[in-house]
Amino acid sequence: MTATGRRRPRAPRSTGLNQAAFGQRVRPYAPVRVISLDQVEAIHQAALRVLSVIGIRVLDPTARSLYAQAGATIIEDRVRLDPAMIEGLLKTVPESFTLSARNPIHDVVVGGDVCVYTSVGGPAYVMDNDRGRRDGTFAEMCDFMRLVQSLNVLHQEGGGPFEPMDLPANTRHLDIYRAQITLVDKTWQGQTLGRARTMDGIELAALSLGTTPDGLKDRPVLVGVINTNSPLQLDIPMAEGLIAMAEHGQPVAITPFTLAGAMAPVTIGGALTQQHAEAMAVIALTQIVRPGAPVLYGGFTSNVDMRTGSPAFGTPEYMKAAQASGQLARRIGVPFRSSNVTAANDVDAQAAYESQMALFGALMGGCHLLEHGAGWMHGGLTASFEKLILDAELLQMMDAYFEPIRTDADSLALDAIEEAGPGGHFFGTAHTMDRYGKAFHTPLLSNWDNYPTWLDKGGIDARTRAHQVWTALLKDYEQPPLDPGIAEAIDAYVARRKEEGGAPMN
Amino acid sequence: MTATGRRRPRAPRSTGLNQAAFGQRVRPYAPVRVISLDQVEAIHQAALRVLSVIGIRVLDPTARSLYAQAGATIIEDRVRLDPAMIEGLLKTVPESFTLSARNPIHDVVVGGDVCVYTSVGGPAYVMDNDRGRRDGTFAEMCDFMRLVQSLNVLHQEGGGPFEPMDLPANTRHLDIYRAQITLVDKTWQGQTLGRARTMDGIELAALSLGTTPDGLKDRPVLVGVINTNSPLQLDIPMAEGLIAMAEHGQPVAITPFTLAGAMAPVTIGGALTQQHAEAMAVIALTQIVRPGAPVLYGGFTSNVDMRTGSPAFGTPEYMKAAQASGQLARRIGVPFRSSNVTAANDVDAQAAYESQMALFGALMGGCHLLEHGAGWMHGGLTASFEKLILDAELLQMMDAYFEPIRTDADSLALDAIEEAGPGGHFFGTAHTMDRYGKAFHTPLLSNWDNYPTWLDKGGIDARTRAHQVWTALLKDYEQPPLDPGIAEAIDAYVARRKEEGGAPMN
Repeated sequence: MTATGRRRPRAPRSTGLNQAAFGQRVRPYAPVRVISLDQVEAIHQAALRVLSVIGIRVLDPTARSLYAQAGATIIEDRVRLDPAMIEGLLKTVPESFTLSARNPIHDVVVGGDVCVYTSVGGPAYVMDNDRGRRDGTFAEMCDFMRLVQSLNVLHQEGGGPFEPMDLPANTRHLDIYRAQITLVDKTWQGQTLGRARTMDGIELAALSLGTTPDGLKDRPVLVGVINTNSPLQLDIPMAEGLIAMAEHGQPVAITPFTLAGAMAPVTIGGALTQQHAEAMAVIALTQIVRPGAPVLYGGFTSNVDMRTGSPAFGTPEYMKAAQASGQLARRIGVPFRSSNVTAANDVDAQAAYESQMALFGALMGGCHLLEHGAGWMHGGLTASFEKLILDAELLQMMDAYFEPIRTDADSLALDAIEEAGPGGHFFGTAHTMDRYGKAFHTPLLSNWDNYPTWLDKGGIDARTRAHQVWTALLKDYEQPPLDPGIAEAIDAYVARRKEEGGAPMN
Repeated sequence: MTATGRRRPRAPRSTGLNQAAFGQRVRPYAPVRVISLDQVEAIHQAALRVLSVIGIRVLDPTARSLYAQAGATIIEDRVRLDPAMIEGLLKTVPESFTLSARNPIHDVVVGGDVCVYTSVGGPAYVMDNDRGRRDGTFAEMCDFMRLVQSLNVLHQEGGGPFEPMDLPANTRHLDIYRAQITLVDKTWQGQTLGRARTMDGIELAALSLGTTPDGLKDRPVLVGVINTNSPLQLDIPMAEGLIAMAEHGQPVAITPFTLAGAMAPVTIGGALTQQHAEAMAVIALTQIVRPGAPVLYGGFTSNVDMRTGSPAFGTPEYMKAAQASGQLARRIGVPFRSSNVTAANDVDAQAAYESQMALFGALMGGCHLLEHGAGWMHGGLTASFEKLILDAELLQMMDAYFEPIRTDADSLALDAIEEAGPGGHFFGTAHTMDRYGKAFHTPLLSNWDNYPTWLDKGGIDARTRAHQVWTALLKDYEQPPLDPGIAEAIDAYVARRKEEGGAPMN
């Protein structure tokens, strides 16, 4: 089980479909600023005030004593942190870090001007065009993961796309982890609900890289999401997950679930203040556990439909809150996590425009980790095979948008303009012939046939084409090679932990 | 026929559907810069070089002599303009102007940090869910215009949504103009293909405001689009239309049709150079005709599908070209025109995401006039009733995105956060109750029901909901009042011009 055993760089897969190569694109444009620097400061100061005056309720006694040791004021389960303490703890947060994949060509950077695009994680249900929404099975979940591996635009598996309901709940996470490691050779996300599940992820991630949990302490490989129980509350399973991850130097994305009008104030300014307070308090805990532990600032502020109380996603409020969250994360020097979200019920125009709003919020907000980058539907309750393809196309388009416009002499093309001349055309010029193969984004999903041709070919809409794309991709899937010794060690670990009864139900 | 006759401010229409009031929203965020100031300068200088070295072919002798009088070098039909001449002529272009509607509450500003949203103009065909794509009739065209009137988010009728094929081609424009004036009381666009059609528009616009063409010279009311015949060519009908509009102080949007890889270089930098050259040359002509005539810089650079040669729209290349075009327009101090475009064949996810890309390109590119803001399909060949509603929703969402995040003490909501407390909720707090009615964007098209409720209600996708929205809006339409004397004068003009045989066919 040597390092060489797992280092087999492979070329990005070719599926016959149009995909750009695996890689993180540099965003060459400044993030959009939706609030002024004075406004950033006003929210930051208000959030510090929330933490010193109101504080945060921490249900886990271990977490409370960690806060206490670091100087917080504890009264019952309420933890109050003063501004100097927060600022001191934030100083050790790393601005960026690299995540190691088991295939090193799939290593990714978190921070700077690049983003990690993940697949959807966590929904209860699965859906596709043929079978509608339903409980998912392990076999289907594996198919979804195979597609995540096959889509070059996705950098990371997002933590299990949906629950495999045919598996027992106490050991399900073990089968998911094994699938993540064997079907995908990109980085992946662990489950952080309680210490047992978290440690199983860390143990298996270590085994997949031929090392031990201790060997990961300075080598981030696994990402976990820690949600606060907004408003201003951290529950026991999340605190346990956070502590286990931070102890082992593994990054968590601290994500307050601040739905304006429900778990947060109805004003976006107020919801952001609460988000910023919760994020800072819990980011601080990671640094108490292990100074320098990698951590992200999660922005998830959205709003409810005030007529029904239902959460809405990909709204204009979501988009500007995401961009403001990016500004707040940069204010405190913490990498920024955002998401690709929609409340749409079908893979239709609404699903596209809400996800697009969310993506502009995230990617033009300076996002470093895009959670639920592909496949999220129904406000997070469902993973969709067709939405996975739609989102992959949206992400490919953003990557192409990030390709800078060049203005060297060749690109300005004065010679070509002279050659074509007034009234001429550029189809046959040398300038065109030399470049046309790679000049533009080639779509995965979009159809640009003219209308009569499109009708002749069956008049197939985007939702149906997405189905065709994923079934074709799945047919072409090849499982990435894994050192047999590592595979055996993983199997043995999973078998042992199943025998032990898996993880307690939270 | 006095001014008072037409000045009847009316409240925005209430249709039972969720619409924000008519008005232009200030964009509170800086436009996205996709190229550096050095790159802007490189393109600008290259474009000036194109005009001095290669020049532009001008087919209309009148236009050529206007250029000659202003100091251009003319050899046969080729007009060469030196940089100093161009820069001198650009100096008189107004940075902004107001367009008068026949209902003054619908007056709009072109320039600054606001945008005019227009409806689609010019397609050959019409389509809707029930009847597919087909030749349009005058009756259907009038229905489309009624919807343009009813949608508060639209500021301007875009020049006739599609051809009414049941009317004779030589007089069709007269019926379209009359419909624009009588069914809509917002600003509208004229047809600029040849002098006769252009002058009919100017005459009728003048009558609708109780004045004469001379009375409009310092009062912009009508917008026309002037396309170059790329590469580097201005044809006779467009030159005639431009001259008539500029003589009467009416704005034209000079729009090169620079499809990278076909009528322009395959590089975006090259296509932008050619666009900038064509735009500057033709903008200059408006200032020769009448210094100070209002004019816009049109950016329409897109790319072809290099496999088929079909034009593609709403691509990543389109989006960055639009934002770069905004930078180039600002460089020369001319208001910027962009568009909402897609090559999709159905009102599906592709139609949504391509239009959304185009809208971000336009509106975050500092656009002042959004052509084809709602209803454009099939790369401009078709106007769609359902796409009209989809786009209205996208525009409403952009307007809501432009609502600034407030950070006054009330908005930061520290009291509400304290009142709710850790683990509480905000549904019932005074802070929420006081604000919830107007806190967030309320959608026209989006459905936020949970999945079971959505299924119970029939599982209706966005395309079908759009159909329901436009049929409901149309039922509620009320024709805006028009002074009977003005109506009579318009009828008489149309009758006389029909008797004269209308306009020659170009």
